[in-house]
Amino acid sequence: MIRKLSLKPIGYVRTMADEDKIRKDKELLSEIVISKDLTEALDGIQDFSHLFIIFYMHKAFTEKISLKVHPRGRSDLPLVGVFATRSPYRPNPIGLTLVELIDRKRNIIKVKGLDAINGTPVIDIKPYDPLDLSSEARTPKWWIKLHQSA
Amino acid sequence: MIRKLSLKPIGYVRTMADEDKIRKDKELLSEIVISKDLTEALDGIQDFSHLFIIFYMHKAFTEKISLKVHPRGRSDLPLVGVFATRSPYRPNPIGLTLVELIDRKRNIIKVKGLDAINGTPVIDIKPYDPLDLSSEARTPKWWIKLHQSA
Repeated sequence: MIRKLSLKPIGYVRTMADEDKIRKDKELLSEIVISKDLTEALDGIQDFSHLFIIFYMHKAFTEKISLKVHPRGRSDLPLVGVFATRSPYRPNPIGLTLVELIDRKRNIIKVKGLDAINGTPVIDIKPYDPLDLSSEARTPKWWIKLHQSA
Repeated sequence: MIRKLSLKPIGYVRTMADEDKIRKDKELLSEIVISKDLTEALDGIQDFSHLFIIFYMHKAFTEKISLKVHPRGRSDLPLVGVFATRSPYRPNPIGLTLVELIDRKRNIIKVKGLDAINGTPVIDIKPYDPLDLSSEARTPKWWIKLHQSA
């Protein structure tokens, strides 16, 4: 069994927006500055309109997390396991967001809709594959309620 | 700047299928055995039909990776940066797959369509949110060609 996994940042998020705006504004533009030695790994990325960004929520890291939470801290929503939510406070503080790719210049990509704060380490970028996705997904009632009131 | 990120497995993939079948069979059933001390974090997950599984491809880990690859090693497809592909040989060997949730029993979930080999450490599970997704995504010609011939 592997007990500990080690990853290195491939780059960092750059944004001047404050945390509240980042969380709510799906049109927000951010930059991801990739390590210069990985610049070539971005070649061809501009042929995709959408990307998955996988990042490490360094500010959400804590030794002791709750295994069950009210989504977004709302007590009108049920208490559920963290793996049934997108809460940043999870056993590994990994974020996953689908973004729109706006531009790429050398080692910097500009994206729309990334909900990560300035300085967030990015650990992977993957092209979005519409063939992977299901149009028949089922979600709980609380999930629908959350999005309706967002 | 954060130089190194540390994560721990939340569980492991259990499958008896061989690697070739795992890569090709999107109907394949696998189990994810979550650490017993995290069992509660799965509560409520069965209200979702689909999940994103984020895992650590321990067999794809290598000190020296190519920054540009022919997708699936096919020389008829263009040489592109690894971040424009789903190649497992990437700066961080992180896998991301959308699966269908079939069943949950205590700390074990059964899923359909996971392309991870037996013993793969899992680092996060997130519910699939159809609202996140774009139906208008654009992909390169080589991507379409790859899927047509799969």
